[in-house]
Amino acid sequence: MNYPNGIKKQFNNINKEINYKNRGMDLENDLNISNQYYIEKGIAYIYKKPTPIKVVKAEFNQNGYRVIKEAYYSEPSTTDYNGIYKGNYIDYEAKETKNKTKFPISNIHAHQIEHIKHIVKENGICFLIIRFTTINKTYLLRGIDFLNYLNKFKASSIPISFIETHGELIKDKYLPRIDYLEIVDKLWRL
Amino acid sequence: MNYPNGIKKQFNNINKEINYKNRGMDLENDLNISNQYYIEKGIAYIYKKPTPIKVVKAEFNQNGYRVIKEAYYSEPSTTDYNGIYKGNYIDYEAKETKNKTKFPISNIHAHQIEHIKHIVKENGICFLIIRFTTINKTYLLRGIDFLNYLNKFKASSIPISFIETHGELIKDKYLPRIDYLEIVDKLWRL
Repeated sequence: MNYPNGIKKQFNNINKEINYKNRGMDLENDLNISNQYYIEKGIAYIYKKPTPIKVVKAEFNQNGYRVIKEAYYSEPSTTDYNGIYKGNYIDYEAKETKNKTKFPISNIHAHQIEHIKHIVKENGICFLIIRFTTINKTYLLRGIDFLNYLNKFKASSIPISFIETHGELIKDKYLPRIDYLEIVDKLWRL
Repeated sequence: MNYPNGIKKQFNNINKEINYKNRGMDLENDLNISNQYYIEKGIAYIYKKPTPIKVVKAEFNQNGYRVIKEAYYSEPSTTDYNGIYKGNYIDYEAKETKNKTKFPISNIHAHQIEHIKHIVKENGICFLIIRFTTINKTYLLRGIDFLNYLNKFKASSIPISFIETHGELIKDKYLPRIDYLEIVDKLWRL
């Protein structure tokens, strides 16, 4: 397009901002749509848990409703999603990173790691969905492989090469947008 | 005890208040302790979900923390507790009522009933734990029996006689305080 340089730059920045904003919502949004599809087709029942919030102050307003006046987001002690699939307990955490080469482990809180250990011990289906937003690739990594990595390497991040080797790439589809249950079938032999 | 009548009455009232307060917390507290026991003994991994809260206004304070300034308790769309037991998805709602003869169905929200239907359809272990606080009796009623009652009677409450016939009384124990998994073993033949 034939814009003077200044204007072009401005336009690019706007697009960049918009893309970035959407991208931040993408994985959660894609998963919600995919889970809705699974429910409608009777394939699985998987849902997002409420965000944990610590309420400090609440009072009744003039209409008799309880209004929370002071509260804080608290560190999650479990994963974001769980449910039931082919009779199995299924549980996962979904995370995005802008990093191109590695997944920073600080994205997963200590309590969530404990949660993953419990699920793996009880033979639940447990995994991470990790999206590298910059290169637009989404992987499924089993909880057991994640825990093994933590045990073995005591590192602060997981290189994408480990995720490519031990995890599975989730291909973009139209419906469902992120067909992670296809990967679950393969990895858990369901 | 030899108190003048006035003082005795006062004492009784204090005890009543304390008992009543404790009683309100009892079921949730008893379940948390029981679930902790199940986890420690490696019997099951069952946990309480966060309370759903709709945030309307949040801002950053001077320390860079996000403070929620206006929020409301939203209607729960799922049950309170879920987890994994003997490889099975397990899911329940716990409710107390002061009523001595029936359980008001308004205690369970429409979205929660939909949730129970989904879990039953996917063959998860799903039930209600209902405590009649006045007579101090706690029952486990299977989700399928609850749904059957709703379908058949379109009533606003479930008489305790139905719960006694189709559900199971959970006996008080020392450890775990509410051994509902004993009843689950029996009813689901695990």
